[in-house]
Amino acid sequence: MARMKAIIDCDPGHDDAVAIVLAAKHFDLLGVTTVGGNAPLWRVTDNALRVLDLIGRPDIPVARGAAGPLMGSLPGVGQRVHGATGLDGADLPRSQRAVIPRNGVEFLIDTVMSNPGTVVIATGPLTNVALAMRQEPRFARSVARLSIMGGSATWGNVSAAAEFNVWADPEAAHIVFTSGAKLTMCGLDLTRQAAVGRETIAGFRGVGTRTAGVIADLLEFYRAASEGLTGSPTVPLHDPCAVAVLAAPELFEFRFGQVEVETRGEWTRGMTVVDRRRWESEEPGVGPVGNCRLATRVDAEGLFALVREALASCP
Amino acid sequence: MARMKAIIDCDPGHDDAVAIVLAAKHFDLLGVTTVGGNAPLWRVTDNALRVLDLIGRPDIPVARGAAGPLMGSLPGVGQRVHGATGLDGADLPRSQRAVIPRNGVEFLIDTVMSNPGTVVIATGPLTNVALAMRQEPRFARSVARLSIMGGSATWGNVSAAAEFNVWADPEAAHIVFTSGAKLTMCGLDLTRQAAVGRETIAGFRGVGTRTAGVIADLLEFYRAASEGLTGSPTVPLHDPCAVAVLAAPELFEFRFGQVEVETRGEWTRGMTVVDRRRWESEEPGVGPVGNCRLATRVDAEGLFALVREALASCP
Amino acid sequence: MARMKAIIDCDPGHDDAVAIVLAAKHFDLLGVTTVGGNAPLWRVTDNALRVLDLIGRPDIPVARGAAGPLMGSLPGVGQRVHGATGLDGADLPRSQRAVIPRNGVEFLIDTVMSNPGTVVIATGPLTNVALAMRQEPRFARSVARLSIMGGSATWGNVSAAAEFNVWADPEAAHIVFTSGAKLTMCGLDLTRQAAVGRETIAGFRGVGTRTAGVIADLLEFYRAASEGLTGSPTVPLHDPCAVAVLAAPELFEFRFGQVEVETRGEWTRGMTVVDRRRWESEEPGVGPVGNCRLATRVDAEGLFALVREALASCP
Amino acid sequence: MARMKAIIDCDPGHDDAVAIVLAAKHFDLLGVTTVGGNAPLWRVTDNALRVLDLIGRPDIPVARGAAGPLMGSLPGVGQRVHGATGLDGADLPRSQRAVIPRNGVEFLIDTVMSNPGTVVIATGPLTNVALAMRQEPRFARSVARLSIMGGSATWGNVSAAAEFNVWADPEAAHIVFTSGAKLTMCGLDLTRQAAVGRETIAGFRGVGTRTAGVIADLLEFYRAASEGLTGSPTVPLHDPCAVAVLAAPELFEFRFGQVEVETRGEWTRGMTVVDRRRWESEEPGVGPVGNCRLATRVDAEGLFALVREALASCP
Repeated sequence: MARMKAIIDCDPGHDDAVAIVLAAKHFDLLGVTTVGGNAPLWRVTDNALRVLDLIGRPDIPVARGAAGPLMGSLPGVGQRVHGATGLDGADLPRSQRAVIPRNGVEFLIDTVMSNPGTVVIATGPLTNVALAMRQEPRFARSVARLSIMGGSATWGNVSAAAEFNVWADPEAAHIVFTSGAKLTMCGLDLTRQAAVGRETIAGFRGVGTRTAGVIADLLEFYRAASEGLTGSPTVPLHDPCAVAVLAAPELFEFRFGQVEVETRGEWTRGMTVVDRRRWESEEPGVGPVGNCRLATRVDAEGLFALVREALASCP
Repeated sequence: MARMKAIIDCDPGHDDAVAIVLAAKHFDLLGVTTVGGNAPLWRVTDNALRVLDLIGRPDIPVARGAAGPLMGSLPGVGQRVHGATGLDGADLPRSQRAVIPRNGVEFLIDTVMSNPGTVVIATGPLTNVALAMRQEPRFARSVARLSIMGGSATWGNVSAAAEFNVWADPEAAHIVFTSGAKLTMCGLDLTRQAAVGRETIAGFRGVGTRTAGVIADLLEFYRAASEGLTGSPTVPLHDPCAVAVLAAPELFEFRFGQVEVETRGEWTRGMTVVDRRRWESEEPGVGPVGNCRLATRVDAEGLFALVREALASCP
Repeated sequence: MARMKAIIDCDPGHDDAVAIVLAAKHFDLLGVTTVGGNAPLWRVTDNALRVLDLIGRPDIPVARGAAGPLMGSLPGVGQRVHGATGLDGADLPRSQRAVIPRNGVEFLIDTVMSNPGTVVIATGPLTNVALAMRQEPRFARSVARLSIMGGSATWGNVSAAAEFNVWADPEAAHIVFTSGAKLTMCGLDLTRQAAVGRETIAGFRGVGTRTAGVIADLLEFYRAASEGLTGSPTVPLHDPCAVAVLAAPELFEFRFGQVEVETRGEWTRGMTVVDRRRWESEEPGVGPVGNCRLATRVDAEGLFALVREALASCP
Repeated sequence: MARMKAIIDCDPGHDDAVAIVLAAKHFDLLGVTTVGGNAPLWRVTDNALRVLDLIGRPDIPVARGAAGPLMGSLPGVGQRVHGATGLDGADLPRSQRAVIPRNGVEFLIDTVMSNPGTVVIATGPLTNVALAMRQEPRFARSVARLSIMGGSATWGNVSAAAEFNVWADPEAAHIVFTSGAKLTMCGLDLTRQAAVGRETIAGFRGVGTRTAGVIADLLEFYRAASEGLTGSPTVPLHDPCAVAVLAAPELFEFRFGQVEVETRGEWTRGMTVVDRRRWESEEPGVGPVGNCRLATRVDAEGLFALVREALASCP
């Protein structure tokens, strides 16, 4: 059976690295586009190249996209958990190859428009995707599905109300959530169910491949940095959820709902406002109502097994 | 033992009526002040007088406060669940007495300033309390405790993000939450735990007093109107929580936290932004951190027993 | 002929001092209420008492109003031009009398409600007036006219877009401009036409009374402080315009227009948005259209003559 | 002498048509890009092709850009003055040629990056220019000068505070005004000085070429439609100012200043906030201070002569 075509738009980032591992395993990965987020654009682009080398996939093209959000400039907070390089914790060798000579936004547009059925997995700020939607009005309805790691149906991380990826470019997120594209959202309320601690990371390492060892080193850095900030010994494996939700939907439970992005609030800028008022009196899975399919439950052990399986298939 | 002195600032309202019943039972109730909210000011003021007559307490003074919010005008949505009179469902006779010839804001100021130790229980929009704080700068620190039914640490009712009382006057709520007063907040996340259905209401009626019968009639109207809007057969007994939290704190679990009121958001105006990021990794009751004590759990059966006991002591 | 009854609500302030001199001359001045603005409340209240002593009117009651704006707290920028005391530049003796034991907001309400035909002249932030309007819904339509020094139909002073008094409490200004009260606005576009330089101040001094000498000393301090900030050798005599516009309307030209107060803008908070689009194609004086009568032209020499005449009648 | 290379980014529109006439005369016009604004994108693109045919320049490429603003959708108000087609008032034949198969944003980027010294003249909403800046970070500093018809240093047209082009896409304008590009702004305060009435239009017609007759027909429609809305018998020739300011700067007077775009205000969204506070005490031409060169005075007769001269050189 032909695998689904996919592009991953990301800002690696530790959990983005795991997301790339999963995506390369489960999809016909047409390319990786990068966006400023967890670290500056040149860092995350460099990291994407290194991760693809690590997993033996230097054939997958990498295109550099937007350096910062539509409005304002990139905040530095992503580096508090990801370190100065955006991928601290392992010493991946510099890649011998370069990005392709196409802008990431143009790559997204051209690849999606000429490959019907392609899904896009967005694990960073939504700047590239929003620019593609604004430049090519047919982009939104041409994406077979847009799976987003971002937002929250409960509370935030970078602020009391906002999740980092949406907060880093609320205007882009607003464009995406009002675009009419088929959206699946993996918010913090979901990804917190997939938090990894020392034991889970040890399980990844135990897979035994070189990739597994490097990923375990990276995740242990990430886990410890996060613990310093939050006090919690586990850290959510955010971005892999947005890959797994398409690759193994049977691990997830869903709700359909209306999601609005707050761009103006004093305390809520970058919040995804999810209307949960009917969730109490309705069964999950009822729908579609609203602009988004939200993953609300994940079988975390199933997800970790999926990661281990992907690590096992890498060099 | 001397009972605690209290003022209840309210907009009856069905659940406000039950709150008055509870407050009259457990406190030395120095007065009732009214504020436009669930219904227009003249309606809720009239309702306050009728409820006090019903429970045989025409001695408690009622002072009329602000008709509408600091900014803009009173929205009519409260009447969707409370009916045109603000207290539909029972035919309480018109009171023979009038409000006192003092403005509710002045009454709040004078009563609190001249009765050290007085608590204020606010079960409507916070307009009167905010005006008192702005007119008399010592008011905020002179209130022994301000117990608020309002806001939410999760999602809203009148909008996806906002609870009615805070949404109806966000600027007033902002003033109150930044005032430095000792605050206890009973938000929707709490009051939804104290939802009453047909059975609980029948239990209230079974107390057998005339007041119990009238309150049961009122609550059945309220429950049915709410069901028409939300689809849920039970309705939260919001306002009594703000009385019980002071009268029977042993029924509640608390968190200390920082609460900000969003006044500017496009989708979040009137939201109480509660910083829950550390709640996962900390025990309840740790504190004080932040500007507010939030009631987060209630023993609903204990609360209902408290209501029945109060109803039994009424005519 | 009976003089018009008036209250001046102010934050002296150098130009407020001149406004008090004018108001005491032309009106039956029922009282002075104070509001935090150009300097902290205790300073401006103290200054009001001293100025009334200076002009031989210790019979006029002074009532202390709100210390700061409805939302947030009083910014200190007023003291950049008015000095630490709010009235630097002359050494007025401390008054032997005290404020009356009534809150300024209550004094405004009671005096206006019991003295039909009373005008209110507001030369500071509009906090007291807004509180009076919210506490007593009949206040707005009971004021015979509310003359405001505040806002601008062109550009601002404290920011590119905003004038100090409106910027210091935009929510209060919003309440006032949407209240339905009969408003006359003297904005910066007007008061800049009444700028005083060394020569005009010398003319005030030349009147020869003790009051004239003190006022000239005060204005020279104010002029020099302003020059340090703006580079201009003249300074607008803002507040006296709001008195003169009622006392000598023949010195002014008017427009009727719609004025909205921006409370939300990132760059425009506290701006008075004046709709001037039809002003080009319409004659001045046409109206009434909109919520406000705006003074748009002043005969500055006529105004200065009015000030000299008032100074001549003082001790 | 080699003529300056230019691109005109526009939404014709009557005054845009005159701007194209002027630009084709005075610049080496590398292309015309279109943006949704005065009328929907397909209309303004069609109009651009027709106008270039009219003036005998079918060699100039036209590239279609963004259909609507970054956030939200295109409002229809432009058609109140420009008619349903966006260019009512003359019956220009449909063009036999098509747009080039490049997106307008990509055309802007590629043309500017590969033609050093190119100026961009923007006479519509700034969507295309902002997208180019966000997609290609070097675009802003590669444009030799960006001349904008948009904003106002005084009051607005589409609202009391905002001018149409900036109001139609405030987020794009914000990106442009904070981009660091060399900006020249021709706002409403300038273009109102270049208002044309019946007599001026008759003067254009008197030039005698076919183009002159068509342009006169167009302008008479535009003038009459504007009079119906504003009551004024003259209408500003907005867009040609942004061409002339580069082609004949000797006709203009300038200020350097700081311009901010308000994106959040309730009454001021889309306003250009121009800091004029020092303009009173400083000479024109002093600078550069701020992010923008503002044209503040225009010799209207000189501008009209320039238009007549351009019309004379057309078929």
